[in-house]
Amino acid sequence: MTKKAVLLLSGGLDSATTFALAKEQEFDVYALSFRYGQRHAVELNAAKKVAEMLGAKEHKIADIDLRLFGGSALTADIDVPKSRSDDEISHGIPITYVPARNTIFLSFALAWAEVLDAYDIFIGVNALDYSGYPDCRPEFIEAFEKMANLATAYGVAKNQRIRIHTPIINMTKAQIIGEGLKRNLHYSVTISCYDPSSEGKPCGQCDSCILRAKGFAEHGIVEDV
Amino acid sequence: MTKKAVLLLSGGLDSATTFALAKEQEFDVYALSFRYGQRHAVELNAAKKVAEMLGAKEHKIADIDLRLFGGSALTADIDVPKSRSDDEISHGIPITYVPARNTIFLSFALAWAEVLDAYDIFIGVNALDYSGYPDCRPEFIEAFEKMANLATAYGVAKNQRIRIHTPIINMTKAQIIGEGLKRNLHYSVTISCYDPSSEGKPCGQCDSCILRAKGFAEHGIVEDV
Repeated sequence: MTKKAVLLLSGGLDSATTFALAKEQEFDVYALSFRYGQRHAVELNAAKKVAEMLGAKEHKIADIDLRLFGGSALTADIDVPKSRSDDEISHGIPITYVPARNTIFLSFALAWAEVLDAYDIFIGVNALDYSGYPDCRPEFIEAFEKMANLATAYGVAKNQRIRIHTPIINMTKAQIIGEGLKRNLHYSVTISCYDPSSEGKPCGQCDSCILRAKGFAEHGIVEDV
Repeated sequence: MTKKAVLLLSGGLDSATTFALAKEQEFDVYALSFRYGQRHAVELNAAKKVAEMLGAKEHKIADIDLRLFGGSALTADIDVPKSRSDDEISHGIPITYVPARNTIFLSFALAWAEVLDAYDIFIGVNALDYSGYPDCRPEFIEAFEKMANLATAYGVAKNQRIRIHTPIINMTKAQIIGEGLKRNLHYSVTISCYDPSSEGKPCGQCDSCILRAKGFAEHGIVEDV
């Protein structure tokens, strides 16, 4: 029997690297992306390319418009902060935090996993670079996994457990990129920007662009964007 | 300061009763319903009527098409079981179970609560009548609450907790109806059927119709449907 895994795929470099690592563990990857009203919806084009490049068994895009609630620079008419210092990026909950987003994403992944009869979910959360996001912390993931096993047929009828895998949770951005480069991952198809142009050109100044550029710089790479 | 609560509102009698109980605790109720691809989407008309009747501060309907995953008689082309015995209804996970549905619903409620700065979520789950649904059990709700406090700004920046309220979780259907009748709740606007006609006429034979009719019968009431 093949091992199936559902993987949350954003089009950014973290989830692409997570995909490469899941493949190495010989999972058939079912990739799940979201059109959630994000201002950087061009990331979905990148997600499609990554899914194809890395051979997703299937790639679904769920439509869930989180603009219904707002409350974030990514889903409401609030400016994305630009050119922040390291100190500013690493302290507090940024306005780019989308309320309960990873909880919602993982809940959808859980639904698909249950239908697929899959026992593994991969998510490319990272606790270092985005230390201000509560839903990127290991204690959140652990609590979600516990809840997921009580929420579904896994623990009840199947006598199985579902596991949430977070292979890059404790890596720096440079380490994540290093893992991908070792595996010949073509990062050029990924996009990390929170506020790209409509053609998908990254702004170069949001937290996500800054962290990405620094990560590549540590490998002596300057991306041509 | 007013107390705000987000309440999951389906249009059925359980969530309507839960609404009445939340109001009694003097919450301003923000009602949330879902167009999730359910075959009984007419329940949304009932949800609108309940929201209006009980004075919701706001009523939002989120579009999340769970037919993307299927796997349930409510969201896929699978027949809804009819005329089952008590014993059949109360054993095993029924095919009307929608994978991870309550997890998804509560995740959206959590997102809205966080944006509203609300500390309370109400859900009309019931562990007795739907004993086969893993996501109606108290241990699931408890695990979700723990996870929710780690997932969001509540525990991190606000030093507050969010609470999931399940006032009818341990009541029989007759007890639930009794609570509503005491409060003059007009159940005629609610609909419980899993498989109604396009005009909203209940089938009378699905598990949900059977449980509802029995609950009213214990109060000597036969509904005119």
